[in-house]
Amino acid sequence: MRPSRQFKTIPDSICAPRGFKCAAVFCDIKRIGTGKGSETGQKRDLALIVSDVPATVAGMFTSNQVCAAPVKLSAKRAAGKSARAIVVNSGNANACTGGQGLRDAEEMTRLAARAVAALYERRKNSVRATVIDCRYKRISAKDVLVCSTGRIGVAMPMKNVERGIQKCAPLLTRSTSNARQVAEAILTSDTRRKEIAVEFKVDNRLVRVGGICKGAGMIQPGMDQKLHATMLALITSDLAIESNLLKRALQIAVDQSFNRITVDGDMSTNDSVIMLANGLAGNARIENRSSRFEIFQAALNYVCLELAKLIVRDGEGVSRFVTLRVQGARNMRHAEAAARAIANSSLVKTSWCGGDPNWGRILCALGYSRAKVDESIVDIGYAKSTGREVIFGFKRGKPTNVSLRKLAKITSGKEFDVYVDLNLGRGHFIMYASDLTEDYVAFNKGDVSDPTSLGG
Amino acid sequence: MRPSRQFKTIPDSICAPRGFKCAAVFCDIKRIGTGKGSETGQKRDLALIVSDVPATVAGMFTSNQVCAAPVKLSAKRAAGKSARAIVVNSGNANACTGGQGLRDAEEMTRLAARAVAALYERRKNSVRATVIDCRYKRISAKDVLVCSTGRIGVAMPMKNVERGIQKCAPLLTRSTSNARQVAEAILTSDTRRKEIAVEFKVDNRLVRVGGICKGAGMIQPGMDQKLHATMLALITSDLAIESNLLKRALQIAVDQSFNRITVDGDMSTNDSVIMLANGLAGNARIENRSSRFEIFQAALNYVCLELAKLIVRDGEGVSRFVTLRVQGARNMRHAEAAARAIANSSLVKTSWCGGDPNWGRILCALGYSRAKVDESIVDIGYAKSTGREVIFGFKRGKPTNVSLRKLAKITSGKEFDVYVDLNLGRGHFIMYASDLTEDYVAFNKGDVSDPTSLGG
Repeated sequence: MRPSRQFKTIPDSICAPRGFKCAAVFCDIKRIGTGKGSETGQKRDLALIVSDVPATVAGMFTSNQVCAAPVKLSAKRAAGKSARAIVVNSGNANACTGGQGLRDAEEMTRLAARAVAALYERRKNSVRATVIDCRYKRISAKDVLVCSTGRIGVAMPMKNVERGIQKCAPLLTRSTSNARQVAEAILTSDTRRKEIAVEFKVDNRLVRVGGICKGAGMIQPGMDQKLHATMLALITSDLAIESNLLKRALQIAVDQSFNRITVDGDMSTNDSVIMLANGLAGNARIENRSSRFEIFQAALNYVCLELAKLIVRDGEGVSRFVTLRVQGARNMRHAEAAARAIANSSLVKTSWCGGDPNWGRILCALGYSRAKVDESIVDIGYAKSTGREVIFGFKRGKPTNVSLRKLAKITSGKEFDVYVDLNLGRGHFIMYASDLTEDYVAFNKGDVSDPTSLGG
Repeated sequence: MRPSRQFKTIPDSICAPRGFKCAAVFCDIKRIGTGKGSETGQKRDLALIVSDVPATVAGMFTSNQVCAAPVKLSAKRAAGKSARAIVVNSGNANACTGGQGLRDAEEMTRLAARAVAALYERRKNSVRATVIDCRYKRISAKDVLVCSTGRIGVAMPMKNVERGIQKCAPLLTRSTSNARQVAEAILTSDTRRKEIAVEFKVDNRLVRVGGICKGAGMIQPGMDQKLHATMLALITSDLAIESNLLKRALQIAVDQSFNRITVDGDMSTNDSVIMLANGLAGNARIENRSSRFEIFQAALNYVCLELAKLIVRDGEGVSRFVTLRVQGARNMRHAEAAARAIANSSLVKTSWCGGDPNWGRILCALGYSRAKVDESIVDIGYAKSTGREVIFGFKRGKPTNVSLRKLAKITSGKEFDVYVDLNLGRGHFIMYASDLTEDYVAFNKGDVSDPTSLGG
């Protein structure tokens, strides 16, 4: 539970690392039917992220058995050594769409590869032709990963997608505004962009890691071994690193970040975290778990954790952000089980909504978790934030003399920490959780009188 | 999944079987502080149920590791062969109250035994003295079980409880109005009484089984091996039956009823189902699993299932009652895992709240359940009620041509059935579930500005 190292943040998120270009357009994937595009104020819904040179690739994907076509395809491609580009859309998850869904996902990567390659053809005789354009020529469908988020069970509108990709490719550039537009294009029910980039040195070379993500609902990731949510995170870096090491680093970072958040406890069919590292920082390629690797790991942990927290803070209807620290469990698995039971209890989450400390409901959730609990030695406390004084409501199996009113001063804040010590062993686990509000229900309940709101 | 046998219902719930008396009073266990009692319109909060003669006893209790003092005590006493009385209160759960809680629970049974025994002393020289009164003389604390429901972590106000028990005992009688008052006294956030009694013949003797219960929140029982909720059910019968057989019958009935409901997926610290069978129907004592036993088992199943359904229908904020039928699972455990994942998914439950069929969210929940699922062969359908035509939204892994609007005609009803066929095997499981509404959140979120609403 040591505090994670702070890193210097820089602007431009996924465009901060050298050699990454991106762009986003509106092509009406949700079939709202305005026909026009972002000119008319419609949110962009399709984006491309392209590395100038082949990049080492890694990915973590939902462990939901019902996973979307793009997840199946991208998981296969992320298992390879390198990739060049990601095509991503919001508005349609391409999930529960059968064989057609898989064909559509493949077609999206083909269309993206062709559109990017065409940039060279288009520019080769113009003054704007560059070395980069030449490199684009060699992009094939196999170099492209695809992510989709949005409605389940509706076929992808491939005509719109094709038009969108063709419109998007010529806009590819490395710029602040394009990075922002892509961060916006992947959002669904999110209310704001989620982006970060950090800078650090390896071999005296400046290296950058940048990322964007989306979340909001269906959030309790359980990636690879776990992941539950529709959350997407796309991460770029100009680090030079060996493929298996990048995969290992991403797994560690995701386990400590995206796999520790919950909004509603539902694990999505589409959760994906994809990372490309193109080596253009010029460091000597990292080939083993040296101290150079550890610096990168710390930076990646930081990026993933900050993005993950942004997802919880912007969760559907969320009014409070709770850092839940369980310790003293018999082992790590018990600590995790205890934390997940608390963080997903409807009664605990509604009490947080009202600013009610309610350690009774926390105890109750502990009791039905799979963690071993001895009620007579449990401690439950609250703090305004990490590092501030912990005030206990329940100590060694008994209510303390602290009034609920005093505890409620802490739990009525926008953010607070909950401490649970089972006093049974050394297992510990942190989760980042939200409350459950009327707004969450209102947002998700659909409306029979408006058929377009159904099945979302 | 064959329909359960229908039984003739009769009035008077727990007083329907011969030889059971009951009464309820207000003694301000919640410490509202009016001081007065039910005269002033306060809801009764303490009740006694007494059998004229020793009765065979059985009980099923929460499997929550953090279980309340009365649960610990009653579980021990229900393991014995016979009992005479139950003392029950609402307003305070006597949970998370340490050693004092256990002493208070024991004291409640002592007070109840003494107050009932005193009825004989009081009446022995009066014309009203009866054989029954003489029998009461022999009631000791060990013959009494205790149930509590209400706030967690607050010491029982034993002065009030003592006054209540002394006021209650002299009112004991077998009457319609007393049975109703007891059914009311055990309620907490429930909006209405839940009671039933049935009559059937064994050995040509009329036998009755009567029951009352309460539920509303913290409802996903997992009794004995399972039970999650604060739900209480108190069941009486005048059947003559051997102790182990009664215990077995209750376990079977609870597994098919209270252990198949969920409102919010939270398992309470206080869930209890207690049954007394006093033999006054005059049948030859049931000693083995004969056809006579099967008739009783069917009646008990029916009583428990009807009570369990009443709990879901009156759950906190519930606007829809859903019968969820999972079949075709690899085995029964898989079927149960699939059903519980669906019935406890916040996103599925909020979609039901809006009358949205949303089979996509059901598929998503299936995918992250522990049940084996092959998306490409799953069927999901809806019916207005059991036995009515099932209309499929998803069939063999593909959306059907049926419009969401047509499915929403079913799911916008107050009650409907959801059918899920995994098409993998013969495992099946039924659950009775509710939607998740804004009212549920509003009810449970407490209010920091009103400290009495905290910690509930």
